[in-house]
Amino acid sequence: MERGDFDTLSDLWLDASHGEISCVHPGWPVLTGRGEVLRSYALIMANTEYIQFFLTDVRVSVAGDTAVATCTENILSGGPAEEGDDLGPLVGQLVVATNVFRRTPDGWRVWSHHGSPVLAETGDEDAEDTGS
Amino acid sequence: MERGDFDTLSDLWLDASHGEISCVHPGWPVLTGRGEVLRSYALIMANTEYIQFFLTDVRVSVAGDTAVATCTENILSGGPAEEGDDLGPLVGQLVVATNVFRRTPDGWRVWSHHGSPVLAETGDEDAEDTGS
Repeated sequence: MERGDFDTLSDLWLDASHGEISCVHPGWPVLTGRGEVLRSYALIMANTEYIQFFLTDVRVSVAGDTAVATCTENILSGGPAEEGDDLGPLVGQLVVATNVFRRTPDGWRVWSHHGSPVLAETGDEDAEDTGS
Repeated sequence: MERGDFDTLSDLWLDASHGEISCVHPGWPVLTGRGEVLRSYALIMANTEYIQFFLTDVRVSVAGDTAVATCTENILSGGPAEEGDDLGPLVGQLVVATNVFRRTPDGWRVWSHHGSPVLAETGDEDAEDTGS
């Protein structure tokens, strides 16, 4: 993703013969099947001049031939320049992701990716309720 | 969830012996393990007087003993009343969810749930880029 290498990214996703893939980008509806999912990455890559992921809180749970991996994606990205600059303004984004991998003869492949924006801290609900 | 039946909901989640569960509520960070996940549902139930889910776009992909189910959750909910009313104001919410289920001797159990708000329509990117 950071290198904008669409072919390598495509290869990471599960083949249709092993299961139907699905993908949710932050704030997006569900995309289903290789056609929709890979098209979305092509679109994102076309509109992203620069992107870097700092992964934290990586946790993996494996059962049989399936793995569920969650992480926090601290993303720094920039779109195309607007007026002749080399790079658009850099934007920081806090995203959490759940990734489901399936073990195949060719190695682990992505079956599902769901990313979503972290909008609020948890644990503040009580303080909010009491108006403090 | 609609009945506020915490025990039944707890039983639907995978036992720790089969894998570590994870859960992302819309806008929240990742919660991991039965303790954190079930506590979050107790909190949500305590602050929810009324909730109803209208599920659409349900799709299921099964491979071996694992299933990935995605859907759109059209949620209608209301918090506790503020000033002696029976019910707080009802709020509509559009959420997409990816659910991972694991087949156990006792039936299918939830391994991972990731819900996120749908913030924008896709397909408008081009229109936006050209300023139309």
